[in-house]
Parts: sequence; structure tokens; C-alpha cells
Amino acid sequence: MEKALKGVKVLDFTHLLQGPFATQMLGDLGADVIKVERKGSGDSYRAWSFLKYWVGGTESPCYLAFNRNKRSLALDLKLSEAKEIIYKLAEECDIVVENFRPGVMAKLGFGYDDLKKINPRIIYCSSTGYGQDGPYAERPGQDLMIQSLSGLTTLTGRKDAPPTPLGTGIADQLGAYNIVYGLLSALYYREKTGKGQKLEINLYQCLLTHQLQEFAVTLNSGKLFERPESGIAHPGQSAPFGIYQTADGYMCISVNPIPVLAEVLGDEGLNDFNEPQILYDKRDEVFYRIQASVIKQTTGYWMEKMLERDMWVSEVKNHLEAEQDPQAIHLQAFTTYEHPTAGPVRTVNIPVKFSETPGEILRHPPLIGEHNQEILRELGYSEDRIGSLGDKGVI
Amino acid sequence: MEKALKGVKVLDFTHLLQGPFATQMLGDLGADVIKVERKGSGDSYRAWSFLKYWVGGTESPCYLAFNRNKRSLALDLKLSEAKEIIYKLAEECDIVVENFRPGVMAKLGFGYDDLKKINPRIIYCSSTGYGQDGPYAERPGQDLMIQSLSGLTTLTGRKDAPPTPLGTGIADQLGAYNIVYGLLSALYYREKTGKGQKLEINLYQCLLTHQLQEFAVTLNSGKLFERPESGIAHPGQSAPFGIYQTADGYMCISVNPIPVLAEVLGDEGLNDFNEPQILYDKRDEVFYRIQASVIKQTTGYWMEKMLERDMWVSEVKNHLEAEQDPQAIHLQAFTTYEHPTAGPVRTVNIPVKFSETPGEILRHPPLIGEHNQEILRELGYSEDRIGSLGDKGVI
Repeated sequence: MEKALKGVKVLDFTHLLQGPFATQMLGDLGADVIKVERKGSGDSYRAWSFLKYWVGGTESPCYLAFNRNKRSLALDLKLSEAKEIIYKLAEECDIVVENFRPGVMAKLGFGYDDLKKINPRIIYCSSTGYGQDGPYAERPGQDLMIQSLSGLTTLTGRKDAPPTPLGTGIADQLGAYNIVYGLLSALYYREKTGKGQKLEINLYQCLLTHQLQEFAVTLNSGKLFERPESGIAHPGQSAPFGIYQTADGYMCISVNPIPVLAEVLGDEGLNDFNEPQILYDKRDEVFYRIQASVIKQTTGYWMEKMLERDMWVSEVKNHLEAEQDPQAIHLQAFTTYEHPTAGPVRTVNIPVKFSETPGEILRHPPLIGEHNQEILRELGYSEDRIGSLGDKGVI
Repeated sequence: MEKALKGVKVLDFTHLLQGPFATQMLGDLGADVIKVERKGSGDSYRAWSFLKYWVGGTESPCYLAFNRNKRSLALDLKLSEAKEIIYKLAEECDIVVENFRPGVMAKLGFGYDDLKKINPRIIYCSSTGYGQDGPYAERPGQDLMIQSLSGLTTLTGRKDAPPTPLGTGIADQLGAYNIVYGLLSALYYREKTGKGQKLEINLYQCLLTHQLQEFAVTLNSGKLFERPESGIAHPGQSAPFGIYQTADGYMCISVNPIPVLAEVLGDEGLNDFNEPQILYDKRDEVFYRIQASVIKQTTGYWMEKMLERDMWVSEVKNHLEAEQDPQAIHLQAFTTYEHPTAGPVRTVNIPVKFSETPGEILRHPPLIGEHNQEILRELGYSEDRIGSLGDKGVI
């Protein structure tokens, strides 16, 4: 079947998480993504891992996670021959994405103003921690720091705990989605008008935007959210909304009518709290009361009883359990591809289902410079010329 | 200036958070978003609030957060005259988005198969909790439940705490971004080929995708992440990565070289832990040791000392402090618009900066049915006909 972004050519200068996740989303739908890497060590995420674990003994799970459906071109970007290659690629590409600190690309001769001269139709996206200028422009923009600055850490966890960050990258991930949102919108505009443009994203603003709803409350009322003492899961929510311990694990009890919950738990006294105001003001007391009932039976017991009553509940799963979840299996939420050195790699499948242009994992995450020859040949370089670029240390 | 999505017409059947956030992103870039609401009470998010707070005394901050740059058409969708209006709108719209439970739109006569007959170029996106079918298709798909099922809650917080959800919607938000990613890709494809299509998104798969990196580790190694005892902020990270208490608040110390940290803290003994393996295995011990130094001085003191050394650190801010942040002010991260009943409303600005087609807040979040007349007139309805639709209770 066809691919939605077939024919879209992406010159990808990104590294680490956020930029590569963005260009992977484009690659998943058929864009031709050329990942430009430093000759030698490549994307520094290749050296990053967790739990001392390397897939197949050699490959970074972090790098693998965000670089499928791309080709790698590894260059010594400071050499003039490398510059010539980039300029040739810029002539025919639609999109450039980079996530260096402000000014780095211009210094290399690859800023928007440089590439626009070669190809005025280019759409050029720069992503940084805090924007291209301003008091924090020189600060490093790492995910945890942006969680901390944005207010997000003051919403999670319990009242007596320190501000609690989310245990995954989130600014990075939202940055990636905003890159995609910006690029595809600009691409549509270019189809209509022929005009390219420059886009700027910063992780900080992306994470503020994530909290549109919480800021709508606080900036207009002047009131801050206060985290609950108990396990109520959003600082603005009432009981029972939270995660509860059962006899054999945990379960989630989301928004639910108290009379139904009281009946299923066999605790009619819960109905005394069944007023919106009380369910907020006494949410900790109600939480502990529900907890005292829930812990008496297993998750499976409660799930059956509660789903029978159409209650909003779920199991709480870890990542191995999630892989075995019947809905995950039904959706083919996970899939496996072959990698030349790591062997079979298990990963999360493409999230959006297209009736006419399904995404597909057609390429494993590339080895450093795996596609040097192929890409240079497509640009019209002869075998001799490619050989001499190798001899000179350009590739 | 021009708008990137000018001329794109969106027929928006969404409600609550995720769908409305998606169509707001389209509206922010100039798409004409027609929000179809239930006559009378409208989008049920209009009745939702936090902290008993209503902007201007009447408007839901939750609804306001996700519905700017739209027009509202309020109809009794069960009446045949309303159906006729929807079919007329479908003739000329590019995109349809809905986030009802599976089957609801088809029952109303507004499924993909119905609208495709009227307009084969239509791009139709359905978003659900767990997909259109499968063992969980009938389960309600609320954000907290999806956090619980996806493994996410097992990554956040400390070892001895129950699984800890993020204190904001995240499945909903990522669902919104995936809707936008899918729709804009399909729109590009339609520009090239003339072909419309149907897209399906589910929140569950979106939140699994959010954890691509963590699943890359666990599904290939079989090893689960274990949360730290201390405040290390990612379960796969080493010290010092975390949030630390200072003499007057909290600060974030992200990835940093131990020798520099040791010198700034005046604790040369920290260097004894300066091996990658030790910084992971003894991360809790190192965390507490750093904490013992950090608490002795204020956040301002440490920020000055540490930024001088180019360390990766930041303040930890709440939402009121975030609004006053100098970088937020520089970026114009927040802005204010006028609302007819709520008065001035403070909100987060549009995150992506376009050089040629900047996004803009041109419309306040609409009142229920605010644009009934305007939209019907555009469809060619006469004043008489519009009056009689009102008399019959259609609008």
C-alpha cells in the first residue's frame, strides 16, 4: 500500500531523544529520513543505556527506540567536502530538523539562511530547550530541568513528598510531537503556496502547553493546586480517583458514582460522603476508607465485580504485564523487527492506524554511516569519488 | 499574515479533553473548526472544573483550555433536520474528528461509511480508549486507567510508594497529538493523490508509544525497571539525577559530572563514587549525601554557583512562579484573550513559532451554539428557515 508521506525528504541533524522521535514519526509514514551523524561515534544516544543493557550485547535500546525507518549518513561535518554533500542534499530535501543549541547550525554553515539560499522551498525546524534567545538561551535544556521549571513536578505524588517528576521523558516527547505538528502544517501550506519557512520549537513552551488546563485554573484564579495526602491521582480531583492496593497488587478506581462503589464494596457508609463538595474536601478520608475495603480482595475479584457494574476501573500493570495484556495482543501493540547486529528487536508499534496508507517498520535503526554509499550514489557521486571521500576521512 | 491551515475545514464532534485539544491545535493554525455540540448542555467538559473555580464565575477552565479558535454549532442530533445540516457540512469539510465510544457515530448516521458517500475526499479520525474492537473495546477509556494499564505508573515516584500516576492527563494529551499527526499526514497525502481515508487512534497505544525507550529495555532484556528509594527521577538513571531540597525550597540537579558537583558542594568525598556502575548501584546513598549538602544553602545560592560552572540545574517552580519566570516572559509563553462572559482569560500561548504563518488566538472558546446562525447562513439557509429550525428545537 502507499505511504502518507511518500516522497517527503527529511534532512535530519537531530540527536538524543526529542528530534529523533520526531523524524521517526515522519519515517514511519514513509518519509525518506536521512540521519546525518558525526563520523565515528554518531548520535550520542548510541552510547546511552539503562540497566547496563545493550540489545544483542551491542546496541543502545535508547537509540533503537527512536531511529527506525531512517538511513544514516556519517560525515566529518567540518570538512568542505562534507559541506558540499549537505548542500546537495538541501537542494532536494523538503524538511530540515535540528536540535543543537542556538547558533551551532549557523556556525557550521547549515543555518536556515544558508540552506534557504540553496532551496527557498525548504521547511526548517529548530528545536531547543528554551528558545533561540532570552535569559535561558544558554542554559542546557534537559527534560528533568524543564519538568522542574514548568510547574509539572508540583502536581504529582503526595502532599508530604518532594515535587515529583514523571519517570519518563515528557518535555522531549511533547517537543517531538510539536515538531511534527509544525512541520506537517508547514508542509501543507507549502503544497498550497510553494512557500517554505522556518519553525522554532522549545521544550519549555511545549511542557507549559501540556498544562493548559491546570494553568487555566491557576492563572485566572490565583489558586495553586495542592497535592492530596492520600493517593488521589490529580491534585484537583475528588475521591475516589486513584490507585488502590488490593490483596495481591494494585488497581485503579477512576471517576465513579459513590453509590455503586459503596454497594460493590459492601460499605453503605460511603454514601454519607456523596456530595461533590465533600468528595473533594474529605478526599483523603474517603480514599483511606475505600482502601480499607479494597485491600481485602484480589485485583481479579474486584475487576470482575466492578466491570459487571460498568465501573471505570482497571488493573495496574508493569511493562512485562503490559506486553501480555489481551488488548495489547489484539491491537498488535508490540512488534518485532530484525536488526543486523542486535538480531530480533521487540518494540512498540506505530500508534496511528490509516485505512489507505498504513505506517510500517521497513528499516531497522541504521548503523553509523550504513547508507553512506547509497545516499552519495543517489546524489550522483561516482564510485571513484566516493572512494576518495573515504580516503580523505570525509565519510 | 497568512495561516498554515487556512481553508482547512474541520467538522468536530469531539468532547472532553483529547479530541478538543487536537482540533484546537488545528484551529490555532487557521483551520475553520466547527464544534458540533449537543443542544442545551453542550460539550460535557463545560460542566467540569477544579478547585470549585469558574472563570468569570461561569465558565469552565477545563473547557476554556481546549476550545479556542473554534465556532460552535449546537444541534439536537437526533432530529432529521440536524442530520441534513451535518450532511451539508460534510460535503464541504476536509476533516471529521470524533471521540465517542465505538459505534456511536455510525448509529447517528455519521460514521465514516455514511460521510464518505457524501464526500469521498473526507479524512475521518476516530479516537477511543482502546481501539474500535478487541476485549477492552467496551471498557471506558479514561486517562488514569490508561496510565495504569500502560506500565507508566510503575516508573514514577519512590520504591516504597504505590504506583504513581502523573498528576495531569497524559494519555489524553498524547492522543490529541497523534490525532494531529495522523490528520496532517493524511491531508498531505490527499493533496498529492486526492484520496481521503479513515484514521483510528487509541489512547492506550499512544501511551505505550510514549514509553518506546522503556519498552525497548524491558521487552528485549526481560528486566523491569525498579524505582529508587531516594529521589532519583528516572528508574533507570544514576545519581545525581533528581530534585533536591534546599534551605528555602527545591532545585533540580540533572546529569552532571561528579567532580564538578563535588567541588561546588565542597564535598570531595563524592569523588569516591565517580564510576558509572557505582553511581547506579549506590544511587540512593549518593542522592542522600548530595542532599545533605544541598539543604544547607538556598536555591538562589546554588543556582548561581552551579550555573557559573555550566552545570545542568534548574529551579523547581509552581504554576504561579512559572508565570513570572523571566524566560516565560521573554517568550510570551502566556497570553490573555477576551471572553464575552468570563472577561479577560489568561492562557498558555501557541507552542510552535512559524516565520511565515504564525498561529494566533483569533476566537475565544465559543458559547454553546454561538455560531448557529452564522454557520447555517454560510450553508445557504435563509433567515426564515433558520427561524423555523429554532422553532422546531433543532438548534
